Amino acid sequence: MIKNFTQLVDQVKSSKNRRISVAVAQDADVLEALQRAKKANLADAVLVGDHKKISRIAQENRINIEKFELIDVKDEKKAVAVAIDLIRTGRADLLMKGLCSTAILMKAVLDKEKGLRQAGLLSHLGIFEIQSYPKLILMSDAGLNILPTLDEKLKIIENAVFVAKKLGISTPKVAMITAVEKINPIKMPATADAAVIAKMSERGQFHGFIVDGPLALDNAFSKKSCQIKGIRSEVGGVTDIAIVPNIEAGNIFYKLMSYLAGARTAGIIIGAKVPIVLTSRADSDETKFLSIATAAKIC
Amino acid sequence: MIKNFTQLVDQVKSSKNRRISVAVAQDADVLEALQRAKKANLADAVLVGDHKKISRIAQENRINIEKFELIDVKDEKKAVAVAIDLIRTGRADLLMKGLCSTAILMKAVLDKEKGLRQAGLLSHLGIFEIQSYPKLILMSDAGLNILPTLDEKLKIIENAVFVAKKLGISTPKVAMITAVEKINPIKMPATADAAVIAKMSERGQFHGFIVDGPLALDNAFSKKSCQIKGIRSEVGGVTDIAIVPNIEAGNIFYKLMSYLAGARTAGIIIGAKVPIVLTSRADSDETKFLSIATAAKIC
Repeated sequence: MIKNFTQLVDQVKSSKNRRISVAVAQDADVLEALQRAKKANLADAVLVGDHKKISRIAQENRINIEKFELIDVKDEKKAVAVAIDLIRTGRADLLMKGLCSTAILMKAVLDKEKGLRQAGLLSHLGIFEIQSYPKLILMSDAGLNILPTLDEKLKIIENAVFVAKKLGISTPKVAMITAVEKINPIKMPATADAAVIAKMSERGQFHGFIVDGPLALDNAFSKKSCQIKGIRSEVGGVTDIAIVPNIEAGNIFYKLMSYLAGARTAGIIIGAKVPIVLTSRADSDETKFLSIATAAKIC
Repeated sequence: MIKNFTQLVDQVKSSKNRRISVAVAQDADVLEALQRAKKANLADAVLVGDHKKISRIAQENRINIEKFELIDVKDEKKAVAVAIDLIRTGRADLLMKGLCSTAILMKAVLDKEKGLRQAGLLSHLGIFEIQSYPKLILMSDAGLNILPTLDEKLKIIENAVFVAKKLGISTPKVAMITAVEKINPIKMPATADAAVIAKMSERGQFHGFIVDGPLALDNAFSKKSCQIKGIRSEVGGVTDIAIVPNIEAGNIFYKLMSYLAGARTAGIIIGAKVPIVLTSRADSDETKFLSIATAAKIC
């Protein structure tokens, strides 16, 4: 079981090099992150984009891109299509967003014929390492699903569990996070969704993972808090995966961890045929690096 | 301007001693917190509750309650009523919940004739001190208002601004936190509420404070993040008060800060005639202490 990012990065380094297909690669931040990943022996890259612009940006920012394959496509939509095709044809293992709009990239990813769609749902997953907790924390969804329905929550859980397993967590413990641990179906519908999913877990409807909820955040991550509140839970205090009820809660969780709490943070899109790295320019260099490492680990 | 809890506690110590009216005081945790507050010269207390039980608990837990006034009322509802009456008649300055149910306490507080109601709304306010940010962070609402309407958000802001002013912040900067900084009225109504309130601020409809939004959490607390994303904002990066759109987001904010991020934390109920300290048993001793200190500071 991978307990922190140092272990994760080490494992990726010692395994087969993954190839990142970069859609519209003319972006200094992205090229820098790729250079760092390459130097660390984490992953290779195929840069799909405007050759001239990529070379100029690399030169201006003193980024060495010599070792990367380069496919010259000037048009944004075409470059996205080529980047995705590299994955469909097995020439790359994961996708990374460059200077294209997120909307165009996601539309192409979700295309039924030429995209990377699978049966499930796409979701954003945050992964955190923080001193106050003895293992990695996985959390979803901070960026894609705005107010997921019960059914969508099940798919979000499935996606997160898939990643947890890849990180060596044999039976991931999933907490449905709400504001309280009591069920209040009328005033707080998220508590009812949580109760339903927890009961499904109890009835043996899931295999290889356990869900409990509703749990407030303190119950999810502090055994002491569960004891004081008299909550008996297989998940309370030992949560691997936190599922939050809405995007505001998820986004605040993600950014509090990375901006205020000093957690080492990665963020990826999962649920497609391959993981997608879609870093924000405001992400730190470390977050970009760890996002690539995590995506490489799980593909 | 008070920049941290040490300053806050020092100011409270050096000012007139406040009297805490404790509703149903037969609770070991509450008595311990009061003893600590008394020792630190923060506040006095009037214990309203079952005299015998209070004495027994004090003895069992070696808590010195000799210096506290004691009013013997066995019945829960009656004790709550007496505790509130102490405030209405000027014999105490702030209210603290003991072993009574929150529902009974809040009902009595909100009673139109005998309660502590004012024109506004009651709201929960979290106050945080964290190393990564140079001043106190105020945040609302983590505990009372589930999914506030635009009008309720205005009242929540008003309450928080009242506290910020008491902490010496002359022009509090308020960030309406959402998951994104772009306005998306259909899919994310919280961004539209934020935009409306921000525009009200720009039009001069507020006095003595500034509001901007929608802002994602990174924009609110990191100037660098604003720069990278091209957000020009008087609030971005220097936020005093963060207003979140729903109770799940607020609760996660509050508990992430106190349980995982190691922030010094206080939580109080504001908007009534006096501040109300309503700590959870799972709160740390420090949180209980700082909550009393903050309540004493603002009454």
